[in-house]
Amino acid sequence: MPQQLSKEDLVGLGPAEVRGHIRSGAYRGDSWAVAPGFAQTAMVALPREAALDFMIFAQRNPGPCPLLEVTEPGSASPEQLAPGADLRTDLGKYRVYSDGECVAEPGDVSEHWTDDMMAFVIGCTGSFEHHMVDAGISLDYLGDGKVVPVYVTDRDCEAAGSLHGPLAVSMRPIRTDELVRTIELTSRFPAFHGAPIHVGDPDALGVDIDDPAYGDRVEVKANEVPVFWACSVTPQLVALESHVDSMITNYPSFMFITDTPTEQMAVSA
Amino acid sequence: MPQQLSKEDLVGLGPAEVRGHIRSGAYRGDSWAVAPGFAQTAMVALPREAALDFMIFAQRNPGPCPLLEVTEPGSASPEQLAPGADLRTDLGKYRVYSDGECVAEPGDVSEHWTDDMMAFVIGCTGSFEHHMVDAGISLDYLGDGKVVPVYVTDRDCEAAGSLHGPLAVSMRPIRTDELVRTIELTSRFPAFHGAPIHVGDPDALGVDIDDPAYGDRVEVKANEVPVFWACSVTPQLVALESHVDSMITNYPSFMFITDTPTEQMAVSA
Repeated sequence: MPQQLSKEDLVGLGPAEVRGHIRSGAYRGDSWAVAPGFAQTAMVALPREAALDFMIFAQRNPGPCPLLEVTEPGSASPEQLAPGADLRTDLGKYRVYSDGECVAEPGDVSEHWTDDMMAFVIGCTGSFEHHMVDAGISLDYLGDGKVVPVYVTDRDCEAAGSLHGPLAVSMRPIRTDELVRTIELTSRFPAFHGAPIHVGDPDALGVDIDDPAYGDRVEVKANEVPVFWACSVTPQLVALESHVDSMITNYPSFMFITDTPTEQMAVSA
Repeated sequence: MPQQLSKEDLVGLGPAEVRGHIRSGAYRGDSWAVAPGFAQTAMVALPREAALDFMIFAQRNPGPCPLLEVTEPGSASPEQLAPGADLRTDLGKYRVYSDGECVAEPGDVSEHWTDDMMAFVIGCTGSFEHHMVDAGISLDYLGDGKVVPVYVTDRDCEAAGSLHGPLAVSMRPIRTDELVRTIELTSRFPAFHGAPIHVGDPDALGVDIDDPAYGDRVEVKANEVPVFWACSVTPQLVALESHVDSMITNYPSFMFITDTPTEQMAVSA
């Protein structure tokens, strides 16, 4: 059994080193905000026969599902974003869905990965948080060691074939005097969900701000406004709501760390 | 037989009116630069069994294949971009590919459209030309009534499954003092192929500037530089090169005119 590492031990390590520690079991925690500067992503894996519907779903819902890479059938290797990585072992924790239920949450999905499985690599807002910090935008929850809260909204995604479900969102409290810069900056990164989909009143999304579905509860202070971004947890809600036969995803906040610099994926310099 | 209209007769008409004249056969010419202000697109239709490979091809080649909409299997109606339109009749001229050869170039593909056909609507640089003109960028070929020239480059697209082929590009001569503005402006429209992929020496793309594969030969003047954009003719080259069993596309410069304002598809305001 390798020595257990803490999240602090990962500071300063590159993507391949972090993935190595996750793969070996030396690090078992979440990977939120780990290896800043490199794109971090969600992952969805499906049998080939279900892949077309999912790709159409992603095309119709680019907000929650920015598709950054699709692997060959059977392959767990994202050749463009992280050559040599293995999507079956390099995320710290997974969810395995069967007949529309989550049936396992293992730290390795090699035994669940069938020969016809295709993986979809989906951008995540965790990728632009360090750009926000560099731009002087206050993200107090990061300093508190918290993970961004995620909510299930009352908005439906555009359906595709048998796939349908609600939109998930992440929320960050943003100081009102940093709101414009936040929108400008995140607009540069549609690959990571881009600009917010909503600013202010959580009721407009049917969300109870004090009760996130995933992540940590985060206080919205008097000089702040809650800002909501489309979230790559959405496919997990679709798996549940659409009773998907078979799907593997990352566990929320256990993201895949790519070798690709976030800045390379911006729409403008 | 309805009265024949010229391209000039279409000036000032809205997208639905233009599509109506094309559908009825009253207008039989190309639709390049028609109904400026509304997104104009290429179209690819494939049987459902070939659709997954094509969607992966488009995901891996977002430059030449910005996918704006995918129809339901059997449906020729782009519900998001132009509700009520019919992709089998509303383009002036098509190409029908069978076993990797172009076997027909009809003005209506209703009889070729099988029950499992899916249509892919792909953005086109024709959509941002009027923004360039509004910004004071000189596009002399438009005033001359010419259609933008398209070339086959020596660059390969990223393959996907059985699909592979070279990259097609469109070329516009741009005044050197308008080059920066051209790049800035077109970068706003990744839905229409976005920023140029190359500026200057045609040899770098393996292109003979005087011999376009489609469109009109256009002179590059002394104060101009040739500027190249990825082009949605690319899937037609893929059909030929990959010996695709069955594919329908628009004929080059016979674009589909949507009801969607181009400005709605910009990445920033």
